[in-house]
Amino acid sequence: MVKTAITPTKEQNYPEWYQQVIVAAGMADNSPVRGCMVIKPWGYAIWELIQKKLDYELKETGHLNAYFPLLIPLSLLEKEASHVEGFAKECAVVTHYRLIQDKSGKLIPDGKLEEPYIIRPTSETIIGETMAKWVNSYRDLPILINQWANIMRWEMRTRMFIRTSEFLWQEGHTVHETEIEAQEETLKILEIYTKLVEDFLGIPVIQGIKPCFERFPGAVNTYCIEAMMQDKKALQAGTSHFLGQNFSKAAGINFTNRTGNIETAWTTSWGVTTRLIGGVIMVHGDNDGLVLPPTIAPYQIVIIPIYRDGEEIENINIYCENIKLKLSKIMFNNEPIRVFFDKKDMRGGDKVWQWIKKGVPIRLEVGPRDVKNSTVSIGKRTLNTNEKLTLNVDIFVDQIIENLNNIQQTITEKARKFLDSNIFELHTFDEFKNFFSEENNISSGFVKCYAIDDSIIESYIKPLKVTARCIPLSEYNVNNGKCIFTGKDTKHKMIFAKSY
Amino acid sequence: MVKTAITPTKEQNYPEWYQQVIVAAGMADNSPVRGCMVIKPWGYAIWELIQKKLDYELKETGHLNAYFPLLIPLSLLEKEASHVEGFAKECAVVTHYRLIQDKSGKLIPDGKLEEPYIIRPTSETIIGETMAKWVNSYRDLPILINQWANIMRWEMRTRMFIRTSEFLWQEGHTVHETEIEAQEETLKILEIYTKLVEDFLGIPVIQGIKPCFERFPGAVNTYCIEAMMQDKKALQAGTSHFLGQNFSKAAGINFTNRTGNIETAWTTSWGVTTRLIGGVIMVHGDNDGLVLPPTIAPYQIVIIPIYRDGEEIENINIYCENIKLKLSKIMFNNEPIRVFFDKKDMRGGDKVWQWIKKGVPIRLEVGPRDVKNSTVSIGKRTLNTNEKLTLNVDIFVDQIIENLNNIQQTITEKARKFLDSNIFELHTFDEFKNFFSEENNISSGFVKCYAIDDSIIESYIKPLKVTARCIPLSEYNVNNGKCIFTGKDTKHKMIFAKSY
Repeated sequence: MVKTAITPTKEQNYPEWYQQVIVAAGMADNSPVRGCMVIKPWGYAIWELIQKKLDYELKETGHLNAYFPLLIPLSLLEKEASHVEGFAKECAVVTHYRLIQDKSGKLIPDGKLEEPYIIRPTSETIIGETMAKWVNSYRDLPILINQWANIMRWEMRTRMFIRTSEFLWQEGHTVHETEIEAQEETLKILEIYTKLVEDFLGIPVIQGIKPCFERFPGAVNTYCIEAMMQDKKALQAGTSHFLGQNFSKAAGINFTNRTGNIETAWTTSWGVTTRLIGGVIMVHGDNDGLVLPPTIAPYQIVIIPIYRDGEEIENINIYCENIKLKLSKIMFNNEPIRVFFDKKDMRGGDKVWQWIKKGVPIRLEVGPRDVKNSTVSIGKRTLNTNEKLTLNVDIFVDQIIENLNNIQQTITEKARKFLDSNIFELHTFDEFKNFFSEENNISSGFVKCYAIDDSIIESYIKPLKVTARCIPLSEYNVNNGKCIFTGKDTKHKMIFAKSY
Repeated sequence: MVKTAITPTKEQNYPEWYQQVIVAAGMADNSPVRGCMVIKPWGYAIWELIQKKLDYELKETGHLNAYFPLLIPLSLLEKEASHVEGFAKECAVVTHYRLIQDKSGKLIPDGKLEEPYIIRPTSETIIGETMAKWVNSYRDLPILINQWANIMRWEMRTRMFIRTSEFLWQEGHTVHETEIEAQEETLKILEIYTKLVEDFLGIPVIQGIKPCFERFPGAVNTYCIEAMMQDKKALQAGTSHFLGQNFSKAAGINFTNRTGNIETAWTTSWGVTTRLIGGVIMVHGDNDGLVLPPTIAPYQIVIIPIYRDGEEIENINIYCENIKLKLSKIMFNNEPIRVFFDKKDMRGGDKVWQWIKKGVPIRLEVGPRDVKNSTVSIGKRTLNTNEKLTLNVDIFVDQIIENLNNIQQTITEKARKFLDSNIFELHTFDEFKNFFSEENNISSGFVKCYAIDDSIIESYIKPLKVTARCIPLSEYNVNNGKCIFTGKDTKHKMIFAKSY
């Protein structure tokens, strides 16, 4: 058996493997706050890269960033009935505004608020209330706003990055003159999310529409992208909601239309979260730790000096700094290549393993012989650890873009094949039950089958601990078949899976 | 009397002028949450520019971004006694984790937490607790962490950007092996803040040390930069705290030193906030609204088409798009020039005034005659509104960098002169009392005088509603004089002012 850097392996215990990869890569840490984590620099740097890319795309499509209050008055939350129902069970409530010492010297809450606040679980209500003041005429529309923020949902079962009580996200909120414009916006964002997740994170997704019983509380329609993890479970990677006039009516977002009459506006909202980082780990990671596509690697290349005695250090340092300088001047994916020269005081072998576990795409090991021969010893995260290639340094530099592109492609294609080969089309409920019955650590995959868009099917799948992920856009309203659960006519095929 | 865009003028009513500039420039809005504001896109874009610049400088000096929980358990806060005392009076307390409906259908808090949490008023305690786990040996040091986050301090008297219950900031937290390294870090950050505020925001500051009674709760020493607003009041623009071993001891940040013994580490913390945006308004704004230094203008140039009938539109559009394209390719301050071509459906004159109020440095008005003659009509925010210059478009483009640099310099020098000419050296307490007595809307300036670093002087200045801002670094421990309040010997001169 090959020794791996991560114990247990993902085949042995997938959830525990996931936790251990996070620890080994230094991505996050537990915190003293229930259900909340500390995002460590390596994890946060990945989030910053996701932010930068998505922020650019959102600005290119006319969205402006703004910031709205963290706290939401209860009375605002209550304005949209199904919305409050969806979030009341899991929200942190602020009831006091100071602390005093009791007789024993213990700090206790004091200064009771007349009306409690909740920490935003999402911001439709407070943003709607604000936008109602901004909109008077059709000339003020569309309003295209995005916010980068922290969110709190009091989750009982948490898992780092995937489901935590506090998480980071962006939430877009837009107001439109017509229904069709709002719907177009919803789909435009779904497209931006798809490109972000597929091209930038290397994670293939299925674009779809949530069945009615899985919609965002208060939405008319929720669009989503669904990804498959290596245990063949589903992860919702992003959602885009067409809110119709539900929140506009609740908040009073009205405007004078082109014929001089008052109309209610149409809104959308959409978001992706730090959960995407969990997706990256679960889709690309292996038994030696994290594997990062070059696009989101905080360092795409790490240079590791290997030497025995002190005399060699100076020459190696100069040689390495020079390689670093050359590489940093080359553009990959519209950014200078991110190179780190790791000079820290640690054994070369330990250093190599540290960067393997952190998922850095390319490692350069440089010893005295490399300096003498103008070579570098190249290790790739996508190859076996001991598979190293020694190459002339100039040739290596000349080929670096091709090299990084190849790695990106290798990682992406592997994930694509995995998804494609693990979707199974089933035709009866017996097949369906059978498919999902024999699972333990690793699930059997995604099922695609005829199903009606009705909450009645929950009664069939819930006992099997299976969730309805989405009606793929490609399967929406274009089919003619019988629902495998109810036997009723349906125009949709739906995707089902075990899920996070 | 000249009609101004902002009523009242700053001479008539400075605080109200400030509010009206914010409204007129579309920078922020009131919110339904007590003491909290909505940062609108124009205000947030300035914050993003500040973030980008500072984030770059912090990363260049080895700091890494991370993210820590929003909530702090009471028990953690209590570990540093003077720290909790400083913040207990103004913190939002989370006591419940869900909502239920009471008999009347009203939502009420439910699920009482065993231990309440407070929303972070600052993160020394929770970050210290976490870092204690990260530090084992001197080899793990220094740890240089920064966090961009939202903060909550329950303020009773609020003012947009300057003092709000929730605000945005960055907070740096570092751990060091030795006292001297931690002190050097504190001063290095003070230098970075000074450059940011002076060179980037065009606001001159005084670098100083806070008197002992104005220190951050729990700090050994607080360094600060102090700025002067146009009403001659002081605004603290940034602080950098040397925390000694106070928080390390409370959190147990210990390490094995170079001789194999266990030692307690030395820490620092430091931050700047969205308050800086308030400073920009108060230092540079005039009676027509906001005035932005080009470095932090979301758009440095706005192109405004001026036409009467429809036929002219197409040619003007092509002409303007072409100017925009040329300008966008030019680098100013290491970034492409930010140009906006304002095509929206609004009268040209209204548009011009909108951009004046928003403080855009350069406006280009383009009419049919300009297209014919290859010219542009140039309006600068630092000149009178009707002072326009018509110039050949290529010459304008060729000179744009010089032009932007001149505007930056003009704005900065004006603020520098204002600060320098409004600091007065006084020698007796009578002079001091007299100086601060005759004020109403506009304060008389800053006073510099001999003073001892002792809380006893609060009893002299508090009745005058004057605050001790700092001992300027240049006046620290280098003087020999008598404190004008107590008559005691002192080695310091101190700055006093009315303040925000």
